[in-house]
Amino acid sequence: MRSKLMEMLEARKDEMIEIRRYLHENPELSFKEEKTAQYIADFYNGKDVKVETNVGNGYGIIVTIVGGKPGKTIGLRADFDALPITEEADVPFKSKNEGVMHACGHDAHTAYLLVLADCLIQLKEELNGTIKIIHQHAEEVPPGGAKSILDSGKLDDLDAIFGIHVLPMDPAGVVGYRSGYAFNGRSYFKLKIQGTGGHGSSPHTANDSIVAGAHFVTVVQTIISRRLNPMDPGVVTIGSFDGKGTFNVIKDSVELEGDIRYMSAESQKIIEEEFKRIVKGIEAEFGVECILEYKSDYPPLYNNPEYTELVAESLKNANDKDIKEVKQYPPLAPSEDFAYYLEKIPGSYFFIGCTPKGVEKPYFNHHPKFDIDEDAILVAAKAVGHVVCSYFEKNE
Amino acid sequence: MRSKLMEMLEARKDEMIEIRRYLHENPELSFKEEKTAQYIADFYNGKDVKVETNVGNGYGIIVTIVGGKPGKTIGLRADFDALPITEEADVPFKSKNEGVMHACGHDAHTAYLLVLADCLIQLKEELNGTIKIIHQHAEEVPPGGAKSILDSGKLDDLDAIFGIHVLPMDPAGVVGYRSGYAFNGRSYFKLKIQGTGGHGSSPHTANDSIVAGAHFVTVVQTIISRRLNPMDPGVVTIGSFDGKGTFNVIKDSVELEGDIRYMSAESQKIIEEEFKRIVKGIEAEFGVECILEYKSDYPPLYNNPEYTELVAESLKNANDKDIKEVKQYPPLAPSEDFAYYLEKIPGSYFFIGCTPKGVEKPYFNHHPKFDIDEDAILVAAKAVGHVVCSYFEKNE
Amino acid sequence: MRSKLMEMLEARKDEMIEIRRYLHENPELSFKEEKTAQYIADFYNGKDVKVETNVGNGYGIIVTIVGGKPGKTIGLRADFDALPITEEADVPFKSKNEGVMHACGHDAHTAYLLVLADCLIQLKEELNGTIKIIHQHAEEVPPGGAKSILDSGKLDDLDAIFGIHVLPMDPAGVVGYRSGYAFNGRSYFKLKIQGTGGHGSSPHTANDSIVAGAHFVTVVQTIISRRLNPMDPGVVTIGSFDGKGTFNVIKDSVELEGDIRYMSAESQKIIEEEFKRIVKGIEAEFGVECILEYKSDYPPLYNNPEYTELVAESLKNANDKDIKEVKQYPPLAPSEDFAYYLEKIPGSYFFIGCTPKGVEKPYFNHHPKFDIDEDAILVAAKAVGHVVCSYFEKNE
Amino acid sequence: MRSKLMEMLEARKDEMIEIRRYLHENPELSFKEEKTAQYIADFYNGKDVKVETNVGNGYGIIVTIVGGKPGKTIGLRADFDALPITEEADVPFKSKNEGVMHACGHDAHTAYLLVLADCLIQLKEELNGTIKIIHQHAEEVPPGGAKSILDSGKLDDLDAIFGIHVLPMDPAGVVGYRSGYAFNGRSYFKLKIQGTGGHGSSPHTANDSIVAGAHFVTVVQTIISRRLNPMDPGVVTIGSFDGKGTFNVIKDSVELEGDIRYMSAESQKIIEEEFKRIVKGIEAEFGVECILEYKSDYPPLYNNPEYTELVAESLKNANDKDIKEVKQYPPLAPSEDFAYYLEKIPGSYFFIGCTPKGVEKPYFNHHPKFDIDEDAILVAAKAVGHVVCSYFEKNE
Repeated sequence: MRSKLMEMLEARKDEMIEIRRYLHENPELSFKEEKTAQYIADFYNGKDVKVETNVGNGYGIIVTIVGGKPGKTIGLRADFDALPITEEADVPFKSKNEGVMHACGHDAHTAYLLVLADCLIQLKEELNGTIKIIHQHAEEVPPGGAKSILDSGKLDDLDAIFGIHVLPMDPAGVVGYRSGYAFNGRSYFKLKIQGTGGHGSSPHTANDSIVAGAHFVTVVQTIISRRLNPMDPGVVTIGSFDGKGTFNVIKDSVELEGDIRYMSAESQKIIEEEFKRIVKGIEAEFGVECILEYKSDYPPLYNNPEYTELVAESLKNANDKDIKEVKQYPPLAPSEDFAYYLEKIPGSYFFIGCTPKGVEKPYFNHHPKFDIDEDAILVAAKAVGHVVCSYFEKNE
Repeated sequence: MRSKLMEMLEARKDEMIEIRRYLHENPELSFKEEKTAQYIADFYNGKDVKVETNVGNGYGIIVTIVGGKPGKTIGLRADFDALPITEEADVPFKSKNEGVMHACGHDAHTAYLLVLADCLIQLKEELNGTIKIIHQHAEEVPPGGAKSILDSGKLDDLDAIFGIHVLPMDPAGVVGYRSGYAFNGRSYFKLKIQGTGGHGSSPHTANDSIVAGAHFVTVVQTIISRRLNPMDPGVVTIGSFDGKGTFNVIKDSVELEGDIRYMSAESQKIIEEEFKRIVKGIEAEFGVECILEYKSDYPPLYNNPEYTELVAESLKNANDKDIKEVKQYPPLAPSEDFAYYLEKIPGSYFFIGCTPKGVEKPYFNHHPKFDIDEDAILVAAKAVGHVVCSYFEKNE
Repeated sequence: MRSKLMEMLEARKDEMIEIRRYLHENPELSFKEEKTAQYIADFYNGKDVKVETNVGNGYGIIVTIVGGKPGKTIGLRADFDALPITEEADVPFKSKNEGVMHACGHDAHTAYLLVLADCLIQLKEELNGTIKIIHQHAEEVPPGGAKSILDSGKLDDLDAIFGIHVLPMDPAGVVGYRSGYAFNGRSYFKLKIQGTGGHGSSPHTANDSIVAGAHFVTVVQTIISRRLNPMDPGVVTIGSFDGKGTFNVIKDSVELEGDIRYMSAESQKIIEEEFKRIVKGIEAEFGVECILEYKSDYPPLYNNPEYTELVAESLKNANDKDIKEVKQYPPLAPSEDFAYYLEKIPGSYFFIGCTPKGVEKPYFNHHPKFDIDEDAILVAAKAVGHVVCSYFEKNE
Repeated sequence: MRSKLMEMLEARKDEMIEIRRYLHENPELSFKEEKTAQYIADFYNGKDVKVETNVGNGYGIIVTIVGGKPGKTIGLRADFDALPITEEADVPFKSKNEGVMHACGHDAHTAYLLVLADCLIQLKEELNGTIKIIHQHAEEVPPGGAKSILDSGKLDDLDAIFGIHVLPMDPAGVVGYRSGYAFNGRSYFKLKIQGTGGHGSSPHTANDSIVAGAHFVTVVQTIISRRLNPMDPGVVTIGSFDGKGTFNVIKDSVELEGDIRYMSAESQKIIEEEFKRIVKGIEAEFGVECILEYKSDYPPLYNNPEYTELVAESLKNANDKDIKEVKQYPPLAPSEDFAYYLEKIPGSYFFIGCTPKGVEKPYFNHHPKFDIDEDAILVAAKAVGHVVCSYFEKNE
């Protein structure tokens, strides 16, 4: 099956590129991907698969390919939402939807997966198991689509799940993997510190919220420096300290907002506990009132070591002319809602190099000039195809 | 001369009140007191004195009363500008100039001094010296009128200077004095701390100005707690910490503004030096760039002990039925440009109780409901009159 | 009576000096002044007064002089303990008690009061009231003698109390007074911050007490800088931060000790409350355990304004050739247990200049080279004598 | 050669254990391993190899095994010093050298390497290259033996180097590897902050070193929280804050000591630069003088990825019944002077599980009760043997 699949994919490389370009010209924002979802659903018209639409809290689509032989069930996921960015990339298939752009490569993800799915449908009699193709909406905006699709129960029977992301850290042909934690989880906080105003010359009649806020900022540094395991990455950034006032009036309240990152569920827990402890401490210490909003969105993404090794070994041994290098990647600072799937289902999320040819310092994902080498789309299709084949070979 | 003067003042109590009410109804802002100045100048029309107008950087007026006998020269000063406050006091002679109000009692100051000056003019043949009546504009707004009047050179021949302020800390009949430092001096600062912005998840690529600013705030506390003589009052208030930004973006710069108070020239110097030292320290410590604006306006007001004792003794021994109590006052938090006169000329600035009758918790100066017991105007006139008499008796 | 008293004192100047020198040669430590007390008691042998010894928690002595006419009752106090200092002053009557020295002038205090008491005994028939001479032990070492003498109830009938201290801030002939708060009160604290130790490379397994202690030190600064009225002096000094450990072991606990000063009962209360609040805050913030010992000893010394004015006016109007100047003094940093008397009994504690003749920079009290101009002893006797006369004249 | 070697090793398992026990009973401290070195040298008596003793700054030994065929040259290193720990492990071969203990497993390292070396000597005709056996002294005490052996030039011809450490994180049979940075580097600092002493009641006459020190501690936290890449581990521990003094005396100086850890040369550089920047900042900010001693000892240990993959692949494919699992390890907090070799020579340092049988929570290295499962010695010998075979097979 593997060699047939690879041949089919190679033959349809141009089609993948066409699909990607169509999607690129017609991007839609998270939770508003009506036409994109319709386009995807239409693609499966007349094919011998079960297509479920409007899955989860948006336009999610699950396509179930039942193999000719019994076996395990796996999921393959690609996201299809775009970003509120005005495209500045100089490409002929530029976004026609002003202010919206496929600047994160989800167009490429969807393009490869549609064609791969179609090939797998054609080969399904040879398949010893079931594949669920997950076209996911709304990855970019918390709470995201992944959690709601999981919550639908429609993935409860999955034995494993895989997905990829295009990243311009390497040229097309390079595939990256990362065992264990691979993407940061993140939390958000807003903290209002309420003191009491007063005249600048008479601090004893007031309770200076700027002084309390400043001590909060200095103490919060100790979460990372003293509370986290030094081997576990973590960040507490206070991005906003809103204490604008009048020079000779003691400020009655300040409002801080910030961004918190962590690479494990344990770190997430430690940071949240310590953060809240410090807030209580500042209240006690300064006699101020603290109103805290603290919420976590995407968890850290944890790649199952066994399935990550399966990915790595499968691709290293593939002897595929389009997959030139398979290498370990470092953990990455961003967050990604594929993490929700991996909390419930073992699997691995890996990386497809896509630096445009001849470019030394490529624009990264989310940049208005982000662009990819479209060869990467075939690499993605083949890489995921190899993983599927290896998985089912192993579970025969 | 003393008894004649007191009789004359008592007889003109109602006139003082009328003048005060007229001024109260027609307040003018600092540096814009055109009509007030004209009113004052007109008052001296036809009197045998030298009247100089437009003295200093505004509508200042100096009236010189040359006595029949040679002797020392003293100055008596009253200020006549009003504040940008919409009056809320329920009085029949409410401000007719919407948004402007004599909320600091300068109307009473001017009222007493006009009548006192007229009486002194009438008695001048008995006077062994010269009196300069200083009607000062623009006390409320730095740089103020005092410094410019001094700089005119027209007060170079003064041997002493006196002035009063009405304060609702006591009822009419009480006179307060304070030897040595009596009003705070003050400085203003604006500090921009320039770091480097960056993504919230990647602090190492940025230089967080909020963290540097927070440490600045905590270190600045040590100026008051460890650098100043504990017996010397001082305040460093950071009234504004403008660091509003986006929660997940490291803030590239913050701007702090504040108010600094001190009760001696030495404290002023220490605070300024330490403040600037800490700014340099923050630059070195965090690798940020600091842009500092630091300026002092009114200096601390220093009452000459000898002349303050003259005031206290003169009034205690006056046996005047309108002056019921003479007592020491604590130093006061506000600032006052009479301080400039006292830097060059020995003298004393003292306090006239003016709590409205029957009021327990009076509104303070600068409050929209500020009001006075008009009996205090006569007290002011008599108190300054007594001091003038005692001074010239002592210097016969 | 006043002129007789002054003549008698002048005649006994040499005797005062002799007594002072005897005491200077024979100093005794606080609570151990057995021989000094015996010497004082012996002085009153055969005189027509009631002498009570061993008053309070030590060798306190009260001598009651009942006047020939009825009237008020006042107290005059002099302290008689010495300090654990090895004398370095080059005087012929150097301490014979190695390691103990009258380095605070209590020898002079006792000398003047003995002779003054004797003169008053001789003049008692003219006296319209009662005088209690209080020879107090143990001023230098908390809890001091004053509180226990008060607690004995033997001063319950006092209408007023007076005392003096020799200070080398001015030459003999100058008398200083200070209305209101004049000496600091003080408190002591010991704070143990208990965290958890651990290996230097693994902060997350420990709870670093040095970091918690450092934040405590920075936050404590805000008590003085932001909580106290800037017009009220106050000091919080952390004199000891005992956190010595091993470079690569996280310190499990640190112990801080410090000294707290304040110039009013209100400041005392504010500092104690804020201090304890911050300790609670540090516990909450860092999850450490804090064990706090906090105790106050001498309160701030408050001179009754009315009696202080009586002192000032009495001496200004005395026309006494030995009292050359009477002037206001600033509040002083040290603490003094006369403050306990003044908490219960109105009165005034004032200052007798004693800079040795020809010395520009005198050694201050408690210095091993401390010395006085012995002329100051007569000044003390006459000053207190004048105050006694003025008091009983006023209360005739 | 591989199968022969493995058979030989298996046959000599008991001998390895005997050697280990002998060494365990006779531990010697770093730089004082005279008898241990003699024992090792004696082992090679009569064997056809070159033995160099007293290499480097101590008792280092290099044994050169020249193969029958030309080829690459590799090094195998085992350390042989013990620790100043009094053994508490309940074993029959307990340390006979009171206060000294092989609590880090260097006895096992030496035992396996002696026997492995002997086997390789016997097989050397089949060897296509050269092997240098490095018996290293003084790993436990900086500056360590490794650097000096490198500096001897005797390893200049090495193409690769390998070594292992027994760790009770897994049972015998498990081998761990870590690509890239695997052990922390470390630095030490001592910082004296010199202010000026003074009386507790008069902070303005002093310069409080405790306050400056406390701010230093709080600012230093920002190195880890804001300056390092969150993905790069780092620790700055202040293990000692020596500021013990008298409660009412302002401390003139404090002395801080601490331990710094990092996992890359770049982190080492950033921490050192920021640390020194903050020291300069504290000087500027507080007007204190800082005397800093800052020195780095062992660098972070960097395992060459290519050779680490060689180790992992070799062992995974070995099909050796004694090597039950080969797995990736996380980076480790301690430091290790094998890092010096890896700065100059590519290679890999890997881990041999040694948890005693039946023990759930084993005592870790450096604990007085540290013990190993002696089966691990054979595992070590076979694992290194496999790596040697794979290396020379690859470089035939």
